[in-house]
Amino acid sequence: MRGRGAKIAGVLPLFMLFIAGTISAFEDIERLRIWPLPAQVSHGGRRMYLSGDFKLVTEGTKYGDTSGILKEGFDRMLSIVRLSHVISGDWNSSGSGGSALLQGLHVIISSSTDELEYGADESYKLVVPSPEKPSYAQLEAKSVYGALHGLQTFSQLCHFNLKKKVIEILMTPWNITDQPRFSYRGLLIDTSRHYLPLPVIKNVIDSMTYAKLNVLHWHIVDTQSFPLEIPSYPKLWNGAYSSSQRYTFEDAAEIVNYAQRRGIHVLAEIDVPGHALSWGKGYPALWPSKNCQEPLDVSNDFTFKVIDGILSDFSKIFKFKFVHLGGDEVNTTCWSATPRIAQWLKKHRMSEGEAYQYFVLRAQKIALSHGYEIINWEETFINFGSKLNSKTVVHNWLNTGLVENVTASGLRCIVSNQENWYLDHIDAPWQGFYANEPLKNITDKKQQSLVLGGEVCMWGEHIDASDIEQTIWPRAAAAAGT
Amino acid sequence: MRGRGAKIAGVLPLFMLFIAGTISAFEDIERLRIWPLPAQVSHGGRRMYLSGDFKLVTEGTKYGDTSGILKEGFDRMLSIVRLSHVISGDWNSSGSGGSALLQGLHVIISSSTDELEYGADESYKLVVPSPEKPSYAQLEAKSVYGALHGLQTFSQLCHFNLKKKVIEILMTPWNITDQPRFSYRGLLIDTSRHYLPLPVIKNVIDSMTYAKLNVLHWHIVDTQSFPLEIPSYPKLWNGAYSSSQRYTFEDAAEIVNYAQRRGIHVLAEIDVPGHALSWGKGYPALWPSKNCQEPLDVSNDFTFKVIDGILSDFSKIFKFKFVHLGGDEVNTTCWSATPRIAQWLKKHRMSEGEAYQYFVLRAQKIALSHGYEIINWEETFINFGSKLNSKTVVHNWLNTGLVENVTASGLRCIVSNQENWYLDHIDAPWQGFYANEPLKNITDKKQQSLVLGGEVCMWGEHIDASDIEQTIWPRAAAAAGT
Repeated sequence: MRGRGAKIAGVLPLFMLFIAGTISAFEDIERLRIWPLPAQVSHGGRRMYLSGDFKLVTEGTKYGDTSGILKEGFDRMLSIVRLSHVISGDWNSSGSGGSALLQGLHVIISSSTDELEYGADESYKLVVPSPEKPSYAQLEAKSVYGALHGLQTFSQLCHFNLKKKVIEILMTPWNITDQPRFSYRGLLIDTSRHYLPLPVIKNVIDSMTYAKLNVLHWHIVDTQSFPLEIPSYPKLWNGAYSSSQRYTFEDAAEIVNYAQRRGIHVLAEIDVPGHALSWGKGYPALWPSKNCQEPLDVSNDFTFKVIDGILSDFSKIFKFKFVHLGGDEVNTTCWSATPRIAQWLKKHRMSEGEAYQYFVLRAQKIALSHGYEIINWEETFINFGSKLNSKTVVHNWLNTGLVENVTASGLRCIVSNQENWYLDHIDAPWQGFYANEPLKNITDKKQQSLVLGGEVCMWGEHIDASDIEQTIWPRAAAAAGT
Repeated sequence: MRGRGAKIAGVLPLFMLFIAGTISAFEDIERLRIWPLPAQVSHGGRRMYLSGDFKLVTEGTKYGDTSGILKEGFDRMLSIVRLSHVISGDWNSSGSGGSALLQGLHVIISSSTDELEYGADESYKLVVPSPEKPSYAQLEAKSVYGALHGLQTFSQLCHFNLKKKVIEILMTPWNITDQPRFSYRGLLIDTSRHYLPLPVIKNVIDSMTYAKLNVLHWHIVDTQSFPLEIPSYPKLWNGAYSSSQRYTFEDAAEIVNYAQRRGIHVLAEIDVPGHALSWGKGYPALWPSKNCQEPLDVSNDFTFKVIDGILSDFSKIFKFKFVHLGGDEVNTTCWSATPRIAQWLKKHRMSEGEAYQYFVLRAQKIALSHGYEIINWEETFINFGSKLNSKTVVHNWLNTGLVENVTASGLRCIVSNQENWYLDHIDAPWQGFYANEPLKNITDKKQQSLVLGGEVCMWGEHIDASDIEQTIWPRAAAAAGT
């Protein structure tokens, strides 16, 4: 989800001379360990060392960092660089090598705001000097979140020197200019099929920053369980697996805050009207009947009141521009099979399919009323097409050719085609993740601009806290490099 | 590796009334989540809450904590207690429930020293009052390391209350007295078959503290790789898998320090004369020949100089009373097959077996000269019996009846019988780990006292950084409860 240049240089190095321009020799690629490969990279052949008290300097920046986002990001960067070995060489007290000593990083940010805005400029420019030059590296970015990307890149230039026992940067000077290819670079986690404790979700968020992914799609609830507290409808989390497999509302806010401070949006999902059986554990009125429990009862206003309550609560903590309303894999037979609902369908002269459309569109309106734009799984487009609200983003997962059709219709699209980007397909090798192309067969510029990006999906049926990170990575990184 | 009382109460709750004495009802066991179960536990039925600024108080203690070991342990305890949920309830500003508010933990340590001494008193006594009583819990211990165990137990009394969104302790008052059943409660890790990065080893050490294990047996090098820097023989780590799969000498010191601050000894092992092929990558003179590379050349004084250099370096950082010299699975055919060595055997009138004995005993003398007592795998006892130095601890892994024979001979013993306590046997269920009894068939008190304890072994052939923790736990905890 980065740049094609990155792709070709990383995996097909023989083609690199045609593409990556300023990179000058094959063997350099072997040592170019930046991933995803930035848009533009040039470098020299000199070695520098990081000072033992490598400093963050922000003179001349417009960003005040009152919330400490930059400072924390810098400290995390240093922790990563120093993680695997004890830095025991002392370059400060040594007279030799002083000119090759990098004293710190000078970060200049031109926007003063902390606000994490979707689609905003995430670019950065990173310069590491050669030994003759002033002894600070320089990182320029429009926003603090672009600067965080630059810090990740900087950390990947750093290596532990086993002889001198200090951190070194090879091949200086470096000139790196970077910006993501897509504004939406997502990872889905699923806390309904297996509960994921808060610290595990935080670890996943941290790992996303290494690959410069920027959207955590939180598939919170589903048929299997409802782990989240909803203050407006406090019995909903009766659908949790157990009392300890729950997130309080404050826990959810903490996840959002933790992600936001790392430049990551949290996309909350409720998948309606299917994939919602667990809702009825606390409120059985949401079920068509005790014996036919899914999809949610389309005939009952209470259903939409609950959705309204959830999205009202969501809007207090999930500040991302979008909410995900699901809408996939809806089997409507329960509706006709339940006399009360069958009667309602008859009264309103609706087929099951029309009721499905009625449900999806009514849920969309509720989301809009809370200030959200909407993401829906692709079945909603296939079934209702132009009836969908124009603020809908269609989330592909199933059909070939879907992205062309969605963008041709003028709607926006996110690509998660399962044959390549479903991480729960554990027999799917990284090459498939890597070769996937969101813009495949789309040549029209306007249509291309409607493809917001892609998302790899870590569905939770077969993973839990003990193996989610090992199943996400490294294949998600391959996708991040496309 | 704790107490039989713990075992029976934990797994066979029906017998608990006969054993665990002060525990009064079956349903309480269901909520008694302390593991390993302490030697003595009694409790009431009242609920208390932890104050938002739960404090460490040390008035009247003899331990100055100049190195911060207690303070860090207390902070780690609080982090664990607060890990999984946001504590958003405010008990400080609330008038109600004040009497049920636990303000902090009063820790009283009677020994002033930081020294982590093997076999020293690890006991502690933990009292959590009921709501009417003074609002501090009290933890008494002989040493700071006993207090760290008490902090672990305290953390396990704490639960998150989903309604009030604070930390609570149920069933107060608590009176807990505890001490480990065995002085040696080990876990083996193997960094030769797969390299384990420093942060992974630190995670393993942290996890050991939860089960009150106290010896990290570091099987550092073996046939496959030699990842550790040895300053006296700097080419030894040429036997590492790669330049980045190495530990500097300072890294090793950091592991020892990290463990020591958590009350855990690090037992370093070099497994000689077999299991040492990788040594010859840097120093081929250690091989019998280029085509016959194991065991180490018994005929060459250089071999023993290198062992002396390694143990000399070890003695600077590995401060544990014991060093492990391996000695298992020695196939001596390379010695006879190498003309030079065959000649040496003939000159010294040694059989291969006698040369094996000569090697093991000479290595033992070198270890003793550096102030170490010795641990050797059981083959050395089976082959050389009473010839072993009296400071030898025999490490069982293979044979039934070994522990009886070793202790009958007056030597000490550690139990790691593979059919029950090898964690790399991934088809071995926790019940076997749990049912294993180090003192099986040993009724003589003197012999019992020679069984130092047990160790579970996480051999590294089939695990790496990505799954070592998931393979160690929870089965190691079952062993810790025996």
